Amino acid sequence: MSADPTRELITDVFDRNCPSRRTMETVTGKWGSLALVALREGTFRFNALRRRVDGVSEKMLSQTLHALERDGLVLREAQSTIPPHVEYSLTPLGARVADQLFGLVDILEGNFGEVLEARVRYDEARSEG
Amino acid sequence: MSADPTRELITDVFDRNCPSRRTMETVTGKWGSLALVALREGTFRFNALRRRVDGVSEKMLSQTLHALERDGLVLREAQSTIPPHVEYSLTPLGARVADQLFGLVDILEGNFGEVLEARVRYDEARSEG
Repeated sequence: MSADPTRELITDVFDRNCPSRRTMETVTGKWGSLALVALREGTFRFNALRRRVDGVSEKMLSQTLHALERDGLVLREAQSTIPPHVEYSLTPLGARVADQLFGLVDILEGNFGEVLEARVRYDEARSEG
Repeated sequence: MSADPTRELITDVFDRNCPSRRTMETVTGKWGSLALVALREGTFRFNALRRRVDGVSEKMLSQTLHALERDGLVLREAQSTIPPHVEYSLTPLGARVADQLFGLVDILEGNFGEVLEARVRYDEARSEG
């Protein structure tokens, strides 16, 4: 993946034992990817983020944010307001990851007609066969 | 997500009922993302791809490839050789998606030291608390 052989030795998402694969799974996971892309829009409180990521349960969003925080991609800040509240934002590395995921969303949303056409062709070929 | 309001109405991965979310889940899924990135390297036969995507079961890779083929991201071609064999490659749209995923892998692998440092800090803060 890189011109630097040392780095290749250390980190390879294709190696099932490499810890980077777990991070890959967190950021590309069903809720991780959407949470990261949503946080590109700004800082969110938990419940607002939960509304933005339509369909996520409180438990799954909480687990997802903890995993992203642990990997240094999301910053969790408790504000000393009354009542106190917690805000989530992207770290610089998280922002780079989120930009890349947004590019992916943009390709899929912008070409979704092509995807739907492919599905129709595939399903028709199957029903004929 | 786009300057085109029509497109926004039609396709929104944040909407749990939008069919694009399923495609997002396929391409970012644990095996879908790795299979797409692997296929950037060229055409693969099934067993070669299975060796490349370390840890995937035959069943999971088969399901993943069918989902990617159905969405028009992977092309499945049966060669009329003796014995016949099947080859998988990326469609033009699949190649765009795979390039974007490769960019993500590259960021993670290239900054994985930062991720590991964050994990240590997070775990230390937890064990102290």
